[in-house]
Amino acid sequence: MAPSEVRIYEVGPRDGLQAESTGVETDDKLRFIQLLSNAGLREIETTSFVSPTAIPQLADADEVMRRLERRVGVRYPVLVPNQRGMERALAAGADAVCVFTAATESYARHNINMSIGESIEAFRPVVAEARQRGFWARAYVSAAFGCPYEGEVPERAVVDVSHALMELGVDELAISDTLGVAGPSDVRRVLGAVGEAGIAADAIGLHFHDTRGTALVNVVTAMSLGYRSFDASTGGTGGSPFAPGSAGNLATEDLVYLLDREGVRHGVDLDAVLAAASFMADRLGRPLQSRLGRAGGWPGSVP
Amino acid sequence: MAPSEVRIYEVGPRDGLQAESTGVETDDKLRFIQLLSNAGLREIETTSFVSPTAIPQLADADEVMRRLERRVGVRYPVLVPNQRGMERALAAGADAVCVFTAATESYARHNINMSIGESIEAFRPVVAEARQRGFWARAYVSAAFGCPYEGEVPERAVVDVSHALMELGVDELAISDTLGVAGPSDVRRVLGAVGEAGIAADAIGLHFHDTRGTALVNVVTAMSLGYRSFDASTGGTGGSPFAPGSAGNLATEDLVYLLDREGVRHGVDLDAVLAAASFMADRLGRPLQSRLGRAGGWPGSVP
Repeated sequence: MAPSEVRIYEVGPRDGLQAESTGVETDDKLRFIQLLSNAGLREIETTSFVSPTAIPQLADADEVMRRLERRVGVRYPVLVPNQRGMERALAAGADAVCVFTAATESYARHNINMSIGESIEAFRPVVAEARQRGFWARAYVSAAFGCPYEGEVPERAVVDVSHALMELGVDELAISDTLGVAGPSDVRRVLGAVGEAGIAADAIGLHFHDTRGTALVNVVTAMSLGYRSFDASTGGTGGSPFAPGSAGNLATEDLVYLLDREGVRHGVDLDAVLAAASFMADRLGRPLQSRLGRAGGWPGSVP
Repeated sequence: MAPSEVRIYEVGPRDGLQAESTGVETDDKLRFIQLLSNAGLREIETTSFVSPTAIPQLADADEVMRRLERRVGVRYPVLVPNQRGMERALAAGADAVCVFTAATESYARHNINMSIGESIEAFRPVVAEARQRGFWARAYVSAAFGCPYEGEVPERAVVDVSHALMELGVDELAISDTLGVAGPSDVRRVLGAVGEAGIAADAIGLHFHDTRGTALVNVVTAMSLGYRSFDASTGGTGGSPFAPGSAGNLATEDLVYLLDREGVRHGVDLDAVLAAASFMADRLGRPLQSRLGRAGGWPGSVP
């Protein structure tokens, strides 16, 4: 049975912008984040404290966090790859953190240059410190539905890394279709295994990329299984730099339209999201990647 | 329960091209149709015998049909608006026809300049002649999920016009989300009413536009209700001329990817569809509108 209310976890400023070839000014990032909170988004992944040489698009993470005008009731998580990143994040005033590993050894190796086991050990002190400080903590499981190096990913691999991450003490796992290859049967298969392994639906966020147009189908499938936390990126940013024009993260506006149409509450205003999306599209100098950004809403959607 | 096999009804040469501002040469249309049948498509809506002044993009309907190289086992339906269109279609050698009206009076008036009742009367001799000749006949119900003039469309309106069209003797109704506004609950509501009214699922094709990214969700919802005929347009052509860049019909390649991923049989080859889509994108001088056209398939999909 579909839930009557869901969380929308906005990843645009981080996952969206990190893949864009056009650099965005710090002032514009801060304005974008303001527009997102204006739209009613209450969880906005703000930036990443990975090495600035690895992701130059987010090299201003310290400045973004220091200058951020926080709104009451809004969570601003940041990515931290290790203890050094955690130190930078703490110095910049972060109070919600995300670590990230993968469901396959090859993807972990390529993306974070660690084995899965090494990444868990690297995150252990980070998550311990976050918990000690009362921070909210999330862990990404990338390539959970398909891996560019290994192909199909057995659900057992997702379960194993999920267990290890939950044992570290994170509040939420983001089970991620990084490649954007999953369909509904994959969602049922992977979430079925994760659920059977005893990880509660409320500890799971779903992170779908819309690369092959299946993100909304997957959201609806996950909702029907009782999951109710969904990642999205305003403007649909986050496409692969290797596939120009390819769709990226599920666009927040596309998700909001569907949820409105289905009468599922989420607290986000479609027009305000579209305004934020347009703002960022202008800064990036290209049309919006989202369906809604091109077509606009429809009067028939629930206000 | 989702069906193990579905029909994909290709509308690219007709619904796709009629909305494109760039004209396509007759030779290229014929080549496109050939590529579509090469891909395994067995129903290809080929052209339209509406007035050439109304839709200049398809003014070569007579030539397309006369020069068509028919493949055994492939159906090539054409749109006929009235008896005059039927005469042209017959002269050109058509043997499968589609008539089209709408679920709302305003949409019928704007689109075909008749009331719904008048359209039914106009189609009566057309469908009678088609049946007499043993032709396959289909009727479109446009704006079944939302109307640009009247807003939300009551399911009763869809049921009423569907009944009238079935009584004419058509083989199939194409219940159409012309605006691309429907979500799964709309699909359940409208198909629920149509089913309760006694119209069999096997007499229904679903025609979804992907304008707001919901087409695949709607396909999956309809499949779960036992429906198994879906319209799609190779390359995702058919966007509104009033919304440049907007997505059009559900792209055949996006549908094929999802069905492959779900293990639902359909007889169409993804790579060959992508080749046909690329061919037409070149002719139209713009990038593909489909997700798959931009991202490409994935090795993990079922061959």
